[in-house]
Amino acid sequence: MSTTGSAPASGALSPQLADVAGPANGTIQPAELDELAAATLRFLAADAVQAANSGHPGLPLGTATAAWVLWSRHLRHDPARADWPDRDRFVLSAGHGSMLLYALLHVFGYDLSLDELRRFRQLGSRTPGHPEVGPTPGVETTTGPLGQGLANAVGMALAERMLAARCNTAEHRVVDHRTWVLAGDGDLMEGISHEAASLAGRLRLGKLAVIYDDNNVTIDGPAERSCADDAAARFASYGWRTLWVDDGNDVAALDRAFAEVRRIEDRPTFITVKTTIGYGAVEVQGTPAAHGAPLGSATLAGMRRRFGWPDTPFHVPTAVRLAGTVRAGAGAQERVRWERTHAEWSQAHPDLAANFPLDRVPSAPDLGVLKPLADGATAGARTATRKASGSALQALAPVYPALVGGSADLAASTNTAIPGGDVGPGEYAGRTIHFGIREHAMAAAMNGIALHGGLRPFGSTFLVFADYLRPALRLAALMGQPVIHVFTHDSIYVGEDGPTHQPIEQLESLRIIPGLTVLRPADAAETALAWEFAAANLDGPTALVLSRQDLPVLGGSGLDDCRRFGARTVRAPSGGPDVVLAASGSEVSLSLVAAELLAARGVEAQVVSVLCRERLEGALRSGSYPRPTAPVVWIEAGVPTGWRALAGPRDTVIGVDRFGASGPGHEVADHLGLSASVVARTALATVGATSAGPAIPGRTPRA
Amino acid sequence: MSTTGSAPASGALSPQLADVAGPANGTIQPAELDELAAATLRFLAADAVQAANSGHPGLPLGTATAAWVLWSRHLRHDPARADWPDRDRFVLSAGHGSMLLYALLHVFGYDLSLDELRRFRQLGSRTPGHPEVGPTPGVETTTGPLGQGLANAVGMALAERMLAARCNTAEHRVVDHRTWVLAGDGDLMEGISHEAASLAGRLRLGKLAVIYDDNNVTIDGPAERSCADDAAARFASYGWRTLWVDDGNDVAALDRAFAEVRRIEDRPTFITVKTTIGYGAVEVQGTPAAHGAPLGSATLAGMRRRFGWPDTPFHVPTAVRLAGTVRAGAGAQERVRWERTHAEWSQAHPDLAANFPLDRVPSAPDLGVLKPLADGATAGARTATRKASGSALQALAPVYPALVGGSADLAASTNTAIPGGDVGPGEYAGRTIHFGIREHAMAAAMNGIALHGGLRPFGSTFLVFADYLRPALRLAALMGQPVIHVFTHDSIYVGEDGPTHQPIEQLESLRIIPGLTVLRPADAAETALAWEFAAANLDGPTALVLSRQDLPVLGGSGLDDCRRFGARTVRAPSGGPDVVLAASGSEVSLSLVAAELLAARGVEAQVVSVLCRERLEGALRSGSYPRPTAPVVWIEAGVPTGWRALAGPRDTVIGVDRFGASGPGHEVADHLGLSASVVARTALATVGATSAGPAIPGRTPRA
Repeated sequence: MSTTGSAPASGALSPQLADVAGPANGTIQPAELDELAAATLRFLAADAVQAANSGHPGLPLGTATAAWVLWSRHLRHDPARADWPDRDRFVLSAGHGSMLLYALLHVFGYDLSLDELRRFRQLGSRTPGHPEVGPTPGVETTTGPLGQGLANAVGMALAERMLAARCNTAEHRVVDHRTWVLAGDGDLMEGISHEAASLAGRLRLGKLAVIYDDNNVTIDGPAERSCADDAAARFASYGWRTLWVDDGNDVAALDRAFAEVRRIEDRPTFITVKTTIGYGAVEVQGTPAAHGAPLGSATLAGMRRRFGWPDTPFHVPTAVRLAGTVRAGAGAQERVRWERTHAEWSQAHPDLAANFPLDRVPSAPDLGVLKPLADGATAGARTATRKASGSALQALAPVYPALVGGSADLAASTNTAIPGGDVGPGEYAGRTIHFGIREHAMAAAMNGIALHGGLRPFGSTFLVFADYLRPALRLAALMGQPVIHVFTHDSIYVGEDGPTHQPIEQLESLRIIPGLTVLRPADAAETALAWEFAAANLDGPTALVLSRQDLPVLGGSGLDDCRRFGARTVRAPSGGPDVVLAASGSEVSLSLVAAELLAARGVEAQVVSVLCRERLEGALRSGSYPRPTAPVVWIEAGVPTGWRALAGPRDTVIGVDRFGASGPGHEVADHLGLSASVVARTALATVGATSAGPAIPGRTPRA
Repeated sequence: MSTTGSAPASGALSPQLADVAGPANGTIQPAELDELAAATLRFLAADAVQAANSGHPGLPLGTATAAWVLWSRHLRHDPARADWPDRDRFVLSAGHGSMLLYALLHVFGYDLSLDELRRFRQLGSRTPGHPEVGPTPGVETTTGPLGQGLANAVGMALAERMLAARCNTAEHRVVDHRTWVLAGDGDLMEGISHEAASLAGRLRLGKLAVIYDDNNVTIDGPAERSCADDAAARFASYGWRTLWVDDGNDVAALDRAFAEVRRIEDRPTFITVKTTIGYGAVEVQGTPAAHGAPLGSATLAGMRRRFGWPDTPFHVPTAVRLAGTVRAGAGAQERVRWERTHAEWSQAHPDLAANFPLDRVPSAPDLGVLKPLADGATAGARTATRKASGSALQALAPVYPALVGGSADLAASTNTAIPGGDVGPGEYAGRTIHFGIREHAMAAAMNGIALHGGLRPFGSTFLVFADYLRPALRLAALMGQPVIHVFTHDSIYVGEDGPTHQPIEQLESLRIIPGLTVLRPADAAETALAWEFAAANLDGPTALVLSRQDLPVLGGSGLDDCRRFGARTVRAPSGGPDVVLAASGSEVSLSLVAAELLAARGVEAQVVSVLCRERLEGALRSGSYPRPTAPVVWIEAGVPTGWRALAGPRDTVIGVDRFGASGPGHEVADHLGLSASVVARTALATVGATSAGPAIPGRTPRA
């Protein structure tokens, strides 16, 4: 390893620097300042982990110099305005190193006090164990689950390019910033890193750079125990440029590498920075012991002695604080210049400014365009809800220019292509993103686009493959990001593709993610309404769950009930019903057939379509939607757990709680005990009707 | 592209060959036979897709020649004994091309009749839409969800090396076979392919080969629209050898490449084979239209004319059938030789033969070693169930030599290291596998190890990261593979790591996967019992859900009830209880504290620990475990949906249905309304007790 410009291997400061580290703070040379600043970041991190008696000192100690060089010389940011839309994004993908980020934020003057650092990992602090977007100014995304931050960053860098193509004019450059990622071995080992890096390479996202903290250590031991990748060669295979810094404490080499990143924009850059995990804590440095536990008071005291660092925890030398402030001032000047440009641009291009507010996810326009498709839908025709969704999206896209998205290579099946052209390398003005067969990176990039602001992302795949993107969808919910997921082919009615492609447990598995709105429309009218809900929901992610197969259009009557209660009645007997058939999606029309079978037996059934179970549950709880007096048969082609939770003691639930089979959809449904006759017979049993009257053909109901 | 030895671009057979394709079947030269055989596979696939009016002809048409060359010259197999343990494994990772596999199986004489090919994608056939292990002899794994097959194959190839290291002796080579994968663009774009290929490269699995069907087309268009990877360079970066075949119809080049694969064994091989999707169907070949829809009668008829193929669907020329039979005969001879060796080996090494039955997943030994840890556990001490799990595993490992596994880089946290050394490149006699930070590939490789036979795999990670491996776990359940997943850090009690690391919905999301057994022990005794359940369960996957934090040991009393009903009483009032507190895992000891608070108020609480909710539900349904006469408060630190489904009308449920927070575990629990006082007050409200008596401190119960 080159040692040019690096600190002594022990981490010790030179004697005169040790002096200025103390309260006295004498004069200081630039190179000395860098050493002092890196040491400050290291000790802030080590002190906070020690105080919390929990956390990860290894990454902050190893990468403090790189982070300092980036933040003090290259990162475009204004700590006073953490939400400046044209700031560079810095993503700590290796989120366990959160104290590095908190130390940086503090030193550069973000609104994060030393007291907050002292409260690291305490309930209600701004310094949670892993960085969380929201409570902490300057945190761009919630990281910790490995690989997610890197993939978020791909979305952010893509959003930057797409907005630049839309907004920048010959006179005004209002979108012009970079996305920097600090990633570790874990990020790179995770599969999502492949999907995300491959997508970024294809799209030639030249303003994206990944700094790889190459420390050769994972939790279980030397990284080589489990991994022998040539990471740089791998990223080169995706079309990335690769740079090397042989010594993570070599300020000049780091500075050159980051400057080189900023020199060209034709493809993303991968910088391998060789570091020593836990650098400076000589008892543990370079070993897994440095990764995820407090250094301990003895090791930390020894490190203090060697660095000549004051005993007081959370010490920040005045020179370092001053350097942070100076840099912040320069950032503020840049920001003020940008605001002037932005103001001129807004005046010159009010439409652009209105359509693409750069500081937030643009809210939906007046959704009147969906009304004819929803309230105005006429009963009688047949169409798959995935097709109805395509129609809704086609109607919505022209009035909601910020809406962009695509599919994980299933656009023709999910009906999610929209007018406006494709996004491709150098072609960022398009609206349709070809995410490729990369569900996980799609969902994480959608999160990144939403976090970036200025655009509203959607994505699509088959419902069964929601499993592939679940970790990213969970993070969307945790962060409250308004991404829209279109999941088609939503049940065993997928048919011939068989059990690997037939969702059974996926629908319920989505419903139990806190904060995710799940909508399963019964027909084209409800599908348009579902898009209305999704577009209007800026509080978190929405999932539309849609049929592959054609379904009868039930029409727009009663949709206001869906808006208020999440459910509507699609068949109401003139008298009080003997039984209620409550279903979602494709099982609503099945229930209508069952209701006719029941009517032939003199049993009157009300049929209720549940578009949004969560909303209905709320309405039932609050009493705004009274519980039916007649017993209810709840029906859905998926695991019935959630419906059983909702059902009253006299109710019955029909679902599917085993895997499907390959065959024509309706045969598979019959095979699994899902048919109109089964619904009808179950309803009869539920109301305790005698078995007099014409026999209802079909299979035995399931237990 | 080289055209040496390739069929004419139109796919047409030479005139004389067209004759033998017909019923007459004249004499034929070897090169002509290859053409004829490849055409046979193509037409069988195209005819079956046409008959089903659904399916994927593109891959079979493009790769028929490569598949024929592999199966007729290189694959070690005996069609009469599809379960021969020392056969080569052939994995169709691109499972949508299932008809290629079915056509191969038929032509080589596996027990798969033409009638089954005619019933492609029909309910109950042996030819489901995607290959399914079980119904179809010769199908090695269930594929379709992309990337899974490739990762299964890594597990199979690893199992081969590990068994070879254990079983082969100087005199007897009983384990010596290869694993071949046919993979498409989709497989390679999925993140799991990165994890699996990186792991295989690290472990130098030299008897693994991936044939990459490089056809430049995905569903949504040219592959380059979404992907610009240099796939070969990427695999080289993992340490794989790379080979090229420029023309997928070049028999000689394919033969050379497969022979080269068999020449060396020091690292896995990646063979790029350039193909034309839908080759021969000139109207659609080379385009996405060839991928996933029937060719249509006109295109198929035109293809028949150009190939000189008989009009009768499902035609197999006698020469091709004969060639398949001859190859099958050669395979049978190899198998018979192997059986002789195996018999000698079994006699010479009865212990090895007993410990490592090569034809199945070895069943568990007498589990008496776990009894002292379960029934004999003495109440009073405190230990985390993850640590108790480590003790159980340490006890089990010596008596169950086939048990192998490891962790996704969290061995020290999940307590899953076992004696016997590490598995590494060239070191396959070890027992601990370092899967790396690759949860998804870990789970899929575990499936591959189980499918291979001879070993019993386990793996481990944090419960929250079950999301990362969910698609592979689902397939384990669908295939009924007895893999054991150890999920630790199972609730918001994870504490300081915060909401990204605190499972909320994961436990319930596992319980709703059909066929997955989920166990959440309350203490060390139940943990040992859970390992007993897991070891004994050969019918499907088992998930152990374990605490990070210490829990009181409740002792071994009543464990027989757990065995029978999935639950046991850990506190029984002398009289009949006023209320039942039923909980799982760490909430059992919480309930015991609550019971004491209640006792102080004169309310007698029975406390029930639910180790396996599914088993308890069955017992309640069957009546073998009577429903309590007193009202029940159900408590679990996760989404409560499933418990609400179980609860009777007088019962109450306490759970967590929002994301957690970073802070000390018990503070987080308090913050989320999970405490003994909340449980006690909820119980009081449930039984309708008056609020007389000493106040119970704590937070308000959640609605």
